[in-house]
Amino acid sequence: MTETATPEPASAGRRTVFYVSDGTGITAEGFGHSLLAQFEKLAIREIRLPFIDSMTKAQEALDKINRCSAAEPARPLVFSTLVNPEIAAVMRQANAFVINLFASFVEPLEQELDMKSTHTIGRLHNVADSQQYKNRIEAINFSLAHDDGQSAANLKDADVILVGVSRSGKTPTSLYLAMQHGLKAANYPLIPEDFERKKLPPALLAYRSKLFGLSITPERLSQVRNERRPGSQYASLNNCRHEVAEAEHMMRREGIRWLSSTSKSIEEIATTILQLLGDR
Amino acid sequence: MTETATPEPASAGRRTVFYVSDGTGITAEGFGHSLLAQFEKLAIREIRLPFIDSMTKAQEALDKINRCSAAEPARPLVFSTLVNPEIAAVMRQANAFVINLFASFVEPLEQELDMKSTHTIGRLHNVADSQQYKNRIEAINFSLAHDDGQSAANLKDADVILVGVSRSGKTPTSLYLAMQHGLKAANYPLIPEDFERKKLPPALLAYRSKLFGLSITPERLSQVRNERRPGSQYASLNNCRHEVAEAEHMMRREGIRWLSSTSKSIEEIATTILQLLGDR
Repeated sequence: MTETATPEPASAGRRTVFYVSDGTGITAEGFGHSLLAQFEKLAIREIRLPFIDSMTKAQEALDKINRCSAAEPARPLVFSTLVNPEIAAVMRQANAFVINLFASFVEPLEQELDMKSTHTIGRLHNVADSQQYKNRIEAINFSLAHDDGQSAANLKDADVILVGVSRSGKTPTSLYLAMQHGLKAANYPLIPEDFERKKLPPALLAYRSKLFGLSITPERLSQVRNERRPGSQYASLNNCRHEVAEAEHMMRREGIRWLSSTSKSIEEIATTILQLLGDR
Repeated sequence: MTETATPEPASAGRRTVFYVSDGTGITAEGFGHSLLAQFEKLAIREIRLPFIDSMTKAQEALDKINRCSAAEPARPLVFSTLVNPEIAAVMRQANAFVINLFASFVEPLEQELDMKSTHTIGRLHNVADSQQYKNRIEAINFSLAHDDGQSAANLKDADVILVGVSRSGKTPTSLYLAMQHGLKAANYPLIPEDFERKKLPPALLAYRSKLFGLSITPERLSQVRNERRPGSQYASLNNCRHEVAEAEHMMRREGIRWLSSTSKSIEEIATTILQLLGDR
């Protein structure tokens, strides 16, 4: 699956994909990405149509899709998560291949649960006022304030404290855990001084059960560090080998669970950490 | 929809929900949240079963679901995004109400595209090696380095620069734009000195077209600031009224597009900003 923004000659393996939703469209887009990744030879151009929450906007969206359909050799694909039956009905008229994720499953689920769905637009729109949302924002602020060992204050409030050598992926993972899962995720670097003392940073000793380690191959670490400080001792493969070996040795000795971030996305690292936290 | 972790007496409006995936399960979970939000009276307990990418793990997941099913009054719900047909077939045997998002749509899509899907597990697992992923990580680092006006260096590389009074939601929105959409999103505060001079911060003058404003109601701002610095002049409703009025006046005068963050989630704010950037 590749993305392209410029129109190309007619080809069956090229489609415009619309994500239509009464909310942000994040669910429709995530689903579309996952599903279309199964078609490697397909080249797609993606267009978001969020906040389609009235008949007027539905009509505008329909016109946009139909204009695209008329201008291109193959009809567009539409992934939608429209809840309101009237708005969803408008979208079904599109000259397009339409997949409405909700329409396919709401009715079977109503039967299974013996419950009527609310068919309400934007149930998630009030999310900003919910306690869960406030916790997420608080977690983001916490993770920012506790990035890279900036502050040892309130570490007792952390849900998890990531440790690892500089540039092992701690910062983006902490922020992701906070943003996506509402976890107060601090991160603390393991530095050469810690390896010399052969001890964890003193600030962390009281919170051993919250520690989770990230490691990385020395080759990849050297590459990442060289982007920051080209040709430095800090970035040299030899130094990276040394730091990684020491860090992994320390994590083993201290019984800290850890994983390699080398070829994992922050989503995959975060999911693994959540699993391990759940198993604890 | 409410979450609960503790088991309660038998009730039809209470279900355990499993998210089963060969990857992180983020798509399945996002879809489940959106769909189940339509059933307000349903109380759910959620369990993630990610990385189910072998027959052994599929069998373990099946056992887990069936044990849950045996122990509870109503059978569990299972949302899955399993790509491999053999693994998906194992999951279909569960004593549960199973929705496999992919199974329902891959075949119709194959027909529409006149293309075979790869049915490959973990197509998204190589994401960490992709250029798109590297751009996201770079964007996160950029947004962190350019949080709260910390650095005016390289602002020319920013895709967007959020402006607004302190605590109007700039920081989480910037990080979300970077993390989710790979945008280099800087943010820069508008402070009383700017209002006195009646001019934008000098560092921003060259980048007017990248500016995007966030505002907030004075009442909400005062509440947020009071959580940080209770009883301060900074947090007082009068001061918040003054700052918000001045900031909105400045944004109007300078022709900066802006929106109110008051009752919007960071996802909604980010989606709106992306739309406006697209329209530009």
